[in-house]
Amino acid sequence: MARALKLAWQGLFTTDPNPRVGCVLVRAGEIVGEGWHQWAGNAHAEVNALRQAGGRARGATCYVTLEPCCHRGRTPPCTQALIKAGVVRVVAAMRDPNPKVAGQGLAQLREAGLQVEYGLLQEEAQALNPGFVQRLVQGRPWVRCKLAMSLDGATALASGESRWITAPPARRDVQRWRARSSAILTGIGTVARDNPALNVRYEELQNEVPPGFDRQPWRVILDRKLTISEKARLFSLPGPVLIVCADAEQPKAESLRSKGAEVISLPVTTEGLDLKALMAVLAAREINELHVECGARLAGSLLQAGLMDELVLYMAPKLMGEASLGLLRLPGIQTMEDCIQVDIKEIRAIGRDWRLVAKILPKG
Amino acid sequence: MARALKLAWQGLFTTDPNPRVGCVLVRAGEIVGEGWHQWAGNAHAEVNALRQAGGRARGATCYVTLEPCCHRGRTPPCTQALIKAGVVRVVAAMRDPNPKVAGQGLAQLREAGLQVEYGLLQEEAQALNPGFVQRLVQGRPWVRCKLAMSLDGATALASGESRWITAPPARRDVQRWRARSSAILTGIGTVARDNPALNVRYEELQNEVPPGFDRQPWRVILDRKLTISEKARLFSLPGPVLIVCADAEQPKAESLRSKGAEVISLPVTTEGLDLKALMAVLAAREINELHVECGARLAGSLLQAGLMDELVLYMAPKLMGEASLGLLRLPGIQTMEDCIQVDIKEIRAIGRDWRLVAKILPKG
Repeated sequence: MARALKLAWQGLFTTDPNPRVGCVLVRAGEIVGEGWHQWAGNAHAEVNALRQAGGRARGATCYVTLEPCCHRGRTPPCTQALIKAGVVRVVAAMRDPNPKVAGQGLAQLREAGLQVEYGLLQEEAQALNPGFVQRLVQGRPWVRCKLAMSLDGATALASGESRWITAPPARRDVQRWRARSSAILTGIGTVARDNPALNVRYEELQNEVPPGFDRQPWRVILDRKLTISEKARLFSLPGPVLIVCADAEQPKAESLRSKGAEVISLPVTTEGLDLKALMAVLAAREINELHVECGARLAGSLLQAGLMDELVLYMAPKLMGEASLGLLRLPGIQTMEDCIQVDIKEIRAIGRDWRLVAKILPKG
Repeated sequence: MARALKLAWQGLFTTDPNPRVGCVLVRAGEIVGEGWHQWAGNAHAEVNALRQAGGRARGATCYVTLEPCCHRGRTPPCTQALIKAGVVRVVAAMRDPNPKVAGQGLAQLREAGLQVEYGLLQEEAQALNPGFVQRLVQGRPWVRCKLAMSLDGATALASGESRWITAPPARRDVQRWRARSSAILTGIGTVARDNPALNVRYEELQNEVPPGFDRQPWRVILDRKLTISEKARLFSLPGPVLIVCADAEQPKAESLRSKGAEVISLPVTTEGLDLKALMAVLAAREINELHVECGARLAGSLLQAGLMDELVLYMAPKLMGEASLGLLRLPGIQTMEDCIQVDIKEIRAIGRDWRLVAKILPKG
């Protein structure tokens, strides 16, 4: 199963909106076939492994990181392929996260006489697909926010200067987080201030994706009053753009559509655009991992709404002083007990900068 | 020499104001004696090692982390002891950092016919005694500033609440930094706000210091206008107190002296008390490592004056928001090029918090 997980990770940047899945077929203690899901529309991991195994799949055990599918999607169901090939035992790391189908694939296999187990390295298998799992279980994407700061927590100087806090290796590392995501979210403040591209620069990911692979995540801009400039850089760069505002019927919306953007509206709460509703909309569009690069206000709103799952924080080895902008705007925090707790999963050097990955813990 | 360094570290909390020194005597590939300097007034490392070796010191090589002394201080000179014991070769990791005496000990040994070398693991030997070295070379202590913040760089909530950001293991860890220092520096703002003890709680350092050892570092308070409360907690706790103000002749100074504090004055610059002059005064008092626990203002002033050498930053796994106080006040920073660069030497978990140790790099 460890080998199957490793194979699955090879699809990190390419399977979206499908999950990353790896599969290993073992007969008499020997690996007879292995495969992983490469990209949507292409064969599933199990089929790739069966293909490699050929006749040697008969009598084999199949280790797969996700319950095999039992429905016909873009490809035929894997359960039938496994049964047909004569596999005798299937060990799945986890069940299908969709509560409506979970277990049906395994049940089908069991009915066909195969020995079936699941749960081996389940946590690791879930970590492969945090977005896919969360979307199917909770109906919202896995929200990962990237922030950069100096050691003393500053994101900009008093003068407003903020580019660049981190060095090129850290900025290249950010491309990997963008590339694995289904969509990249920001606010109109960031667009107006930094005029960012917010797409994946594949030239910085050489040898990490198949040649020619160039899927661009959705770029999602929260722009309640639709004040975005039609000259914003993101319109002229490859990749789809979704602009979310309060009123998608106004003339400006039409004009943005003519530039290739999709413009939709969402309800407005006292806090601005309804972020919970946004998440439901994105989940419906099969957005698994949502990568957020924004200012202190939107990041703070997501956090306080309980809609942030993970923080990727780059820390530059410099001190900028407190006159600068802060990292997060969290007006709701009045006492130490109100603070948002996180679990630091990893701290590592990225060039001269340091990267910290933290899971946001639920309140209380 | 690695063994000698290890021995020297055993004096981490106890040798002050002397340097930490370790010594190993080797004859025919075998360790015949080892020792370290335990505390001021007690025998030097070389003497302890010679004592253990006895007659087996004859013909031995002496590995010592610091050039042996050649002058009679509280103990007789080590050079003579080594010569008398019949040691034939001395390898010192570094020379005496005092430029006025550097090399004289080694010269004495060489004149007596011993083979003499130095420079082996020199950097590691200097790291044993950053304060001692800096005081003798540059005439000022090694200034180490301890700060604590949330992951998003906040030190207090908008309400002013700031205790406790970090958890007990991190606060216990701070005791180690205090205990190794000759003095602890803070500003009147911190005293007025937090009423801190600022001494070493030896009950938290059990098994790390010899039983009964209770040296307290100086507590140095910068209080230009001498507004400190006579009821401040630090007066009632063991350990000497030095209050630095602009005018040490005023009646309040006398009254503080009657509480056991020493009160001195320093010149005042446009920035407040002259910090460079402070460092000269502390160096003259044999302050090697100066531990600073203070607010954003004093920490910023030390940094901008180029008087901070090291930052020990505790990061709590929580998010507090930007309404809070910042970590450092650095009004002099206008552009990214002005930022103070640091070299992160270490990041490690201390309980649920993380500790980062960074060396402040000189400007330009």
